[in-house]
Amino acid sequence: MQERLTKVTEWMNEKNIEVAFLNSKENVFYLSNFYTDPHERLMGILVFKQAQPVFVLPEMEAGQLKDAGWEYEIIGYSDHENPWKLIKTTLEKKQLEKAETVAIEKDVLTYQRSEKFLSCFPEAKIISMEEKLNDMRVVKDDGEITIIRRAANMADYGVQVGIDALEEGISEMEVLAKIEYELKRKGIREMSFSTMVLFGEKTGNPHGNPGDRKLKAGDMVLFDLGVIMDGYCSDITRTVAFKSVTDKQKEIYQTVLKAEQASLETSRPGNRVGDLDNVARHIIMEAGYGDYFPHRIGHGMGINVHEFPSISHLNDGILTKGMVYTIEPGIYLPGIGGVRIEDDVLVTADGYETLTKFPKELQIIE
Amino acid sequence: MQERLTKVTEWMNEKNIEVAFLNSKENVFYLSNFYTDPHERLMGILVFKQAQPVFVLPEMEAGQLKDAGWEYEIIGYSDHENPWKLIKTTLEKKQLEKAETVAIEKDVLTYQRSEKFLSCFPEAKIISMEEKLNDMRVVKDDGEITIIRRAANMADYGVQVGIDALEEGISEMEVLAKIEYELKRKGIREMSFSTMVLFGEKTGNPHGNPGDRKLKAGDMVLFDLGVIMDGYCSDITRTVAFKSVTDKQKEIYQTVLKAEQASLETSRPGNRVGDLDNVARHIIMEAGYGDYFPHRIGHGMGINVHEFPSISHLNDGILTKGMVYTIEPGIYLPGIGGVRIEDDVLVTADGYETLTKFPKELQIIE
Repeated sequence: MQERLTKVTEWMNEKNIEVAFLNSKENVFYLSNFYTDPHERLMGILVFKQAQPVFVLPEMEAGQLKDAGWEYEIIGYSDHENPWKLIKTTLEKKQLEKAETVAIEKDVLTYQRSEKFLSCFPEAKIISMEEKLNDMRVVKDDGEITIIRRAANMADYGVQVGIDALEEGISEMEVLAKIEYELKRKGIREMSFSTMVLFGEKTGNPHGNPGDRKLKAGDMVLFDLGVIMDGYCSDITRTVAFKSVTDKQKEIYQTVLKAEQASLETSRPGNRVGDLDNVARHIIMEAGYGDYFPHRIGHGMGINVHEFPSISHLNDGILTKGMVYTIEPGIYLPGIGGVRIEDDVLVTADGYETLTKFPKELQIIE
Repeated sequence: MQERLTKVTEWMNEKNIEVAFLNSKENVFYLSNFYTDPHERLMGILVFKQAQPVFVLPEMEAGQLKDAGWEYEIIGYSDHENPWKLIKTTLEKKQLEKAETVAIEKDVLTYQRSEKFLSCFPEAKIISMEEKLNDMRVVKDDGEITIIRRAANMADYGVQVGIDALEEGISEMEVLAKIEYELKRKGIREMSFSTMVLFGEKTGNPHGNPGDRKLKAGDMVLFDLGVIMDGYCSDITRTVAFKSVTDKQKEIYQTVLKAEQASLETSRPGNRVGDLDNVARHIIMEAGYGDYFPHRIGHGMGINVHEFPSISHLNDGILTKGMVYTIEPGIYLPGIGGVRIEDDVLVTADGYETLTKFPKELQIIE
């Protein structure tokens, strides 16, 4: 953690930023190892160019913050206190009212809070913190990879539970309920997004919602799910056939699988991020389904289930060892059905490893 | 819906606000009957003093917006377009660049987005929309009450499932998983907050987290849960005893129950909101547990599980027919255990109705 804060401070020195305020729970967790959702209450870290950081949070959580390893100053406030006043006093003590450059999370800090915070620095130029934090978070360290690996493993298990639950006449919501039940029994408190279980023609819509559609022979079944473990996400998609499969369904499946494989094999340090999308899209287009793959091929994943890099063909970034992202091509034929296959991928020194391990050959569930 | 938009426009005329932008999914839903979570994509409603409103959203969702009943202009943008440019063009067509007063949701709009939106009105004074919307949403209409009643009913069911699951040696997470499983099977897609199931000494912390604590005879068991149905929340807490109960536990239970009853009976149009807290707190203090009731007695509930009014002793507002809120006194003895009892309450013409109906006499589960 200390190392991460040091990197932020170094960057601030480089950019001559005197004060930074971070208050997204994700970046706060990343920098402090303390995860909490204070809802409407203010929480954040003040980082300084030339002083130790200060954590602002509701007093009743201060103990947990120390337990998480925070060794610097804490401004703990009660429900009757105005945290902005306490922040202002701290800034004045450090003689920072005249700060010329200040950084905030522009995509997170609300207008209301920005009014309060920035009123402490009437003259300052405002810089976005996100660029630096996104940059730092995009490459995962060994500790993070270990956690994501476990989260991916649990996602594999969720798919297995879903497949085991399939039987004629069961509804999408019933299968979804069984998956989350078994995951919760294993200690998962939160899914990383709203679990998706879709049957038959409903798989033909990439934004479908699970409901009371009943399973019948000949349906494709699509699972898209993930869990949060120790603050990190996983995200897997598998598609299987129930009882039987048509040639058309097989063809779509094999096309998506081939596209995914091509993208996985492009996952290597030095390659262009956007090419992960290009190689897969090319295969799907050649097969005549270009119009039915309407989304980017994937997204970075870590503390947020969607984070950097965004893996669209436009991304000119370069793959680096330690990046973790999803690869998830799909073909969706409206009214008929669709297939998506998604893995969580780690870029290694000389290639890649898929962290989700659930088998991908087409399964026909009896 | 139209009526709600009209009220906003009337208010804007009164305050001489030329343009308002709302982009919280809750207020957008309230004004349009369209519920969506666009994640990082921009979505919102532009309301004008002297023109019909305009909805801004990703093009792919425009169909669903129309299905929800939206009859006015729509700015639908693709992933390759910049929605702010389209908004700017719309504003220029309406000759609003010189607007002197503009309203935004100050507690929601991010700094980044405020920079983009407000750059269209370099001279404008910025007003907060929240005050008006909170004011409107605090009193529920019949349609809203019907939905909340159903959500409350489902919360009752969740408590019953939890109680039925209790057996020696089962863990908190297993009981939690069973509750959510049965609710999901009934079609619930989302809980209104992270479900809480706590056993024994863990009930003594109002912020406890469910884990692998196993149930044993003599434990108090606390359930706190709610569901989201058709965009509206419910929120119930019940505490029961497992196998046996001590005199001390009984005393705490009866004190909390008496406090809750007093607060319920204060729920009547014309009474002061803060007195709901005062009457209950008084009973708990008299019983000698004043130090162990560390939170406000309740909160408004509707589209958000926490909304206005905040029911603390400081609130000088007046109760009105149609308000819906929780009443949830508790006594928490650290290390020993605690009791909380919570209902969802509707203020009626001459008193109140509890929308959650689960029995409240102390149950000893065998």
